[in-house]
Amino acid sequence: MTLRYAMIGGGQDAFIGAVHRKAIALDSCAEFVAGALSSTPERSIASARSLGLAPDRSYGTWQELVEKESNRSDPVDFVVIVTPNDTHHAIARACLLAGLNVVCDKPFTITSDEAKELHKLATRNNLVCAVTYTYSGYPMVRHARELAQSGKLGTIRRVFVEYHQGWLSQNIEQSGQKQASWRVDPSRAGIAGALGDIGTHAEHLARFITGCTPTEVSAHLTSFVDGRILDDDASVHVRAENNVHVTLTASQICTGEANGLSIRVYGDKAGLVWKQETPETLTLIHNDCSRTTYTRGMGNLSPIATSSTRVPAGHPEGYIEAFANIYRGVCDQINAVRTGAAETDLAGVVPNAHDGYLGIRFVEACVTSSKNNGEWTSL
Amino acid sequence: MTLRYAMIGGGQDAFIGAVHRKAIALDSCAEFVAGALSSTPERSIASARSLGLAPDRSYGTWQELVEKESNRSDPVDFVVIVTPNDTHHAIARACLLAGLNVVCDKPFTITSDEAKELHKLATRNNLVCAVTYTYSGYPMVRHARELAQSGKLGTIRRVFVEYHQGWLSQNIEQSGQKQASWRVDPSRAGIAGALGDIGTHAEHLARFITGCTPTEVSAHLTSFVDGRILDDDASVHVRAENNVHVTLTASQICTGEANGLSIRVYGDKAGLVWKQETPETLTLIHNDCSRTTYTRGMGNLSPIATSSTRVPAGHPEGYIEAFANIYRGVCDQINAVRTGAAETDLAGVVPNAHDGYLGIRFVEACVTSSKNNGEWTSL
Amino acid sequence: MTLRYAMIGGGQDAFIGAVHRKAIALDSCAEFVAGALSSTPERSIASARSLGLAPDRSYGTWQELVEKESNRSDPVDFVVIVTPNDTHHAIARACLLAGLNVVCDKPFTITSDEAKELHKLATRNNLVCAVTYTYSGYPMVRHARELAQSGKLGTIRRVFVEYHQGWLSQNIEQSGQKQASWRVDPSRAGIAGALGDIGTHAEHLARFITGCTPTEVSAHLTSFVDGRILDDDASVHVRAENNVHVTLTASQICTGEANGLSIRVYGDKAGLVWKQETPETLTLIHNDCSRTTYTRGMGNLSPIATSSTRVPAGHPEGYIEAFANIYRGVCDQINAVRTGAAETDLAGVVPNAHDGYLGIRFVEACVTSSKNNGEWTSL
Amino acid sequence: MTLRYAMIGGGQDAFIGAVHRKAIALDSCAEFVAGALSSTPERSIASARSLGLAPDRSYGTWQELVEKESNRSDPVDFVVIVTPNDTHHAIARACLLAGLNVVCDKPFTITSDEAKELHKLATRNNLVCAVTYTYSGYPMVRHARELAQSGKLGTIRRVFVEYHQGWLSQNIEQSGQKQASWRVDPSRAGIAGALGDIGTHAEHLARFITGCTPTEVSAHLTSFVDGRILDDDASVHVRAENNVHVTLTASQICTGEANGLSIRVYGDKAGLVWKQETPETLTLIHNDCSRTTYTRGMGNLSPIATSSTRVPAGHPEGYIEAFANIYRGVCDQINAVRTGAAETDLAGVVPNAHDGYLGIRFVEACVTSSKNNGEWTSL
Repeated sequence: MTLRYAMIGGGQDAFIGAVHRKAIALDSCAEFVAGALSSTPERSIASARSLGLAPDRSYGTWQELVEKESNRSDPVDFVVIVTPNDTHHAIARACLLAGLNVVCDKPFTITSDEAKELHKLATRNNLVCAVTYTYSGYPMVRHARELAQSGKLGTIRRVFVEYHQGWLSQNIEQSGQKQASWRVDPSRAGIAGALGDIGTHAEHLARFITGCTPTEVSAHLTSFVDGRILDDDASVHVRAENNVHVTLTASQICTGEANGLSIRVYGDKAGLVWKQETPETLTLIHNDCSRTTYTRGMGNLSPIATSSTRVPAGHPEGYIEAFANIYRGVCDQINAVRTGAAETDLAGVVPNAHDGYLGIRFVEACVTSSKNNGEWTSL
Repeated sequence: MTLRYAMIGGGQDAFIGAVHRKAIALDSCAEFVAGALSSTPERSIASARSLGLAPDRSYGTWQELVEKESNRSDPVDFVVIVTPNDTHHAIARACLLAGLNVVCDKPFTITSDEAKELHKLATRNNLVCAVTYTYSGYPMVRHARELAQSGKLGTIRRVFVEYHQGWLSQNIEQSGQKQASWRVDPSRAGIAGALGDIGTHAEHLARFITGCTPTEVSAHLTSFVDGRILDDDASVHVRAENNVHVTLTASQICTGEANGLSIRVYGDKAGLVWKQETPETLTLIHNDCSRTTYTRGMGNLSPIATSSTRVPAGHPEGYIEAFANIYRGVCDQINAVRTGAAETDLAGVVPNAHDGYLGIRFVEACVTSSKNNGEWTSL
Repeated sequence: MTLRYAMIGGGQDAFIGAVHRKAIALDSCAEFVAGALSSTPERSIASARSLGLAPDRSYGTWQELVEKESNRSDPVDFVVIVTPNDTHHAIARACLLAGLNVVCDKPFTITSDEAKELHKLATRNNLVCAVTYTYSGYPMVRHARELAQSGKLGTIRRVFVEYHQGWLSQNIEQSGQKQASWRVDPSRAGIAGALGDIGTHAEHLARFITGCTPTEVSAHLTSFVDGRILDDDASVHVRAENNVHVTLTASQICTGEANGLSIRVYGDKAGLVWKQETPETLTLIHNDCSRTTYTRGMGNLSPIATSSTRVPAGHPEGYIEAFANIYRGVCDQINAVRTGAAETDLAGVVPNAHDGYLGIRFVEACVTSSKNNGEWTSL
Repeated sequence: MTLRYAMIGGGQDAFIGAVHRKAIALDSCAEFVAGALSSTPERSIASARSLGLAPDRSYGTWQELVEKESNRSDPVDFVVIVTPNDTHHAIARACLLAGLNVVCDKPFTITSDEAKELHKLATRNNLVCAVTYTYSGYPMVRHARELAQSGKLGTIRRVFVEYHQGWLSQNIEQSGQKQASWRVDPSRAGIAGALGDIGTHAEHLARFITGCTPTEVSAHLTSFVDGRILDDDASVHVRAENNVHVTLTASQICTGEANGLSIRVYGDKAGLVWKQETPETLTLIHNDCSRTTYTRGMGNLSPIATSSTRVPAGHPEGYIEAFANIYRGVCDQINAVRTGAAETDLAGVVPNAHDGYLGIRFVEACVTSSKNNGEWTSL
């Protein structure tokens, strides 16, 4: 069944909203029918018009959208929230209270208490509440998870995960760059900068693949660029469940790096490497120092990796397909819940509100540790 | 203006039809409204139903589609042809005679005379007739074209282009693999096997980047797998305009290669390398042996490369986006012709019927040369 | 002038001694004439014989070698010390007191006080005392140093240096593997395991390239393999001079990694990457996300990189050549001191006793920090 | 037993002579004791002096060297010939007639008849006569040979071998560059330019790995640079034994390429790739599109690969070590012949006069084919 969705945020000038829409369009699994796309009613309605929404579903504010959609006989099946971080909680809360399924951008909320509340609300109302940790949508990341959790690496000991960008190595927020401005502003971004914006992706990636949740952290957050209040660089040593140690670094002042997310996981039998900028391959490192590289779309991959793909090996897929895989999971889940075939648990591969909560809790512990000179801090 | 399109071929079990549909959906630049999707009316209509087409535009045969669509007050704006090679000419001819714009898969036709006829027909009727040489849709291929044709490499001398796959290294056609069966059958594929199927992509890629058309060829075609009539491996030495020499190899028996299309171009000042399986980067080889790698989405690329992209550098795009760039060009062109703003020439970056013709002529010359023991054969 | 040298350690079964000898032989800049090659007189003399040393310079013990060589009319020009860590100090001290130049393996000594003493002794006696931080001998590392210290990267902010191996991921010391046994034994290796053995290489590499000495560290040392007393894994956050932050990781339990030393340095204008396992190239990361890769032996490199090479670009050099570059520097320096042309300072590019001292001081600070839960500890 | 050798050619200004000497010194398997190093007696003797040869073995001409060395009671054990191509035959012939073992640079001779004569002479006199096809000395090339010839790839069908350089993309011979001048001069280089200089390396590499000798060729030789008589670019389609097809390209006008020798071999079960500029790894391409990369020095390689290495995996070896492996084989063979333990056949892994002959015969057939417009020409 083709579903219908609304979007809050993502109007003209926004970047990520268009990506969400393209990802959903790719597989035609949901139709875009309603929106409250900007922070002012005028711009919201102008954006809705330019994107072809019907006038009666082109809303001026998110409050109006939630109220009117939930009172229609044919409400949207889910709401996509792509606003700045500080508004996620109020919007998601309103949607869940109104009985609307939610897909929310990360970081999920400002505080972990807010995230916990949303998770409880979704569970109680039997609603889907997904968080777009996009990178877990890549087929080879899903295959990495299978390899790691099926024991192919032996006992997992050591993880190196990093997310390095360079676009904030200069003070571009002072010249009004929109994407930069809100990310460096504590009132909109929350208590962390690079750590919240991209470090949470790294944290989720490591947890998604290994299955081990962080238990304590020793963190050092730094602001390299003059006048910046929040961190633009973070270095965290993590102890996770099952005695897994993780070195996590997130930085937005690595000049010249575009979107350098990568992970290496070592067990006592083998290791693996995956790099987001070349996402089609996954390399297994054997004990004898030989390496085997698997390619998306080839035979002999795990079912979850195989079902997350559209074109044959050698015809590259990328970021939009990874995003689309998250949405496929969301749509499948909504349909399954509707037909009574499943709970709203998202079956493990689609990140949910609990994952969002763990991400915020991680940020909070790191900020505390860094203030205490890197002291080990429990989550 | 959002356009509407029909598809001929591309029903259940087909691979490439779905890719065309996803590529068009990605940018929402045209809507899928009509189809004659399979070789029997029953399967055509079943496929149309499963893809959500309206009953009155779910046609049993392509003849019916062409007749009825061209007589509607709201006909489709273009027809996508994704049937086996031997039917391209008749279908495209009927569409063009009926005043319908065409997008046709490659190789364009069986004979170069057929291709020439279609090119004349499109020009005379002022219709768009595009051929999906997909790989020219990649932003970094378009940037390579700019570098090469703006003199950045100096005088171009030497090209190495190869398209190596391994999926036909065993006789899978005998076990009924559908994709293989028609490609190795001269009555459906034409006079060439690997050369026609993938060698034509390589030929177009070299011509697209260098701007130099082949003038004579010395070719060796081989069938390695027992019982195969058409070539599954081709090695061609090409002399092109401006004394450019090209070594072109196309093979489908390179065991383990997925979709190994790559090109290297050397001038007297610099060289360049692009590989389809890692399409996001383009490397410029400097005279002093240093190399500079450019990434899709970064600043400082040529306008055509920059406008062919959707997400920032480091968020990988791939094959479907390349395809979508072809379709963007087609839709822009149709709109421009409608408003009188342009001819149907496709402005150089979208391959048209003339490109399709040059491809078939190349295949014919290679087959002749190979029969004559590699004798130089003019195009 | 061709020099002559003696070796202490490096007999049969040893690994690194033979590498030193090959490195010296490569350029024929010194002749091997004397040795005390093993820990027992019998094995020392047998090893000397098999390596073709003259009987009167085949010594049973290092004490004998130092005494007799220093009393000859034609003593060796320098002594190479390649014994386990715990003996370095006593041997080097005896050599320096006897007026013999020294080349000593790393880590230099067990305690930083010992290292400081040796440095003073060498300076006072105007003797060369080099420490074989081999990796600084690679031409592209030397070029990286030039780029970083000439301001090509802008103000340096952030360094990631790692040295990851996998050969100790199993408890091979229990089965008597000789290379493993002494490295995991505190009485022979000192207070650190992986950190001392390979972390000191990483520390030196970062300091050599950036020119910034660590000022405080927050370190976490771990022993993953059961029964191991010393660390087999270390994660260190370093604050260095000029507000440079370094993430340094050293591990010997990264299963399947052979000798994974690599470094990335980011300034506010550009970054660079070098990887020891592909040492012939150095990549400069530009602010616009393009990357330029330089190759050893090409034109336009810095003089120090150019003079550290033997064969043209594209004819790979490796580890032995890097080692040979250290020895070239040592021999040049000894000759220069002899002729009064220079001090024994080694002119910056050959690591000396002071570098050895800084390495040990770094290890001591990391061990202290780790014992105090990662507390920032000054050097 | 340590052997002694003489060198003919390789004086001041020469490049390759010094490489031979370093390669031999690396393992100390032979001592350099005599030489006729340049084309004039004065320069020969000056070069000998600067390299430390004894006055009585510093010869003015190669004729003098051959005569006097063969009449000594302690003649050299072998003679290394590193002069321009046109002199190889006369020198090697004189050595072999005088009972001296020979190591000769490639291409072996000017004509295949000359090569055949030398091969007969060496065989008849039971002398070692090796040709330095250096690249077969790389451990991973030797492992590739084992994989290919042991059936790991299945039936071999298709080979792509290329040797691309850029250093002759400008007319540097006119400005007197010494390395270029003789290589483009037919009176010194012979009938081929790039094909003889580097194409013969490519031909040998393909034959060494596959074990299949070319039987007929279709070749196109081109001179791109104005005024050049010999080819600076060659494209050859080769049919070899067992129906193996080889595409071989050799070019010295690929601007910016340093020393781009690489080979890919495909059988009906698997393929392999090796690239000279990153010689430490060899990649096996599996039928399912996964790839396994092996590293020199790791466990589980073939005995010949393992015995051709000096330092552990991850400590890069390179070109000089490959050269040294050729010399190790030569020295072992000379010792084995002396002790009656072996014939002078070089046991397969060290290229001999017969290999040199096959190389020249290949060049001759290509030149003939090219003159006849690419006609298939038998060897």
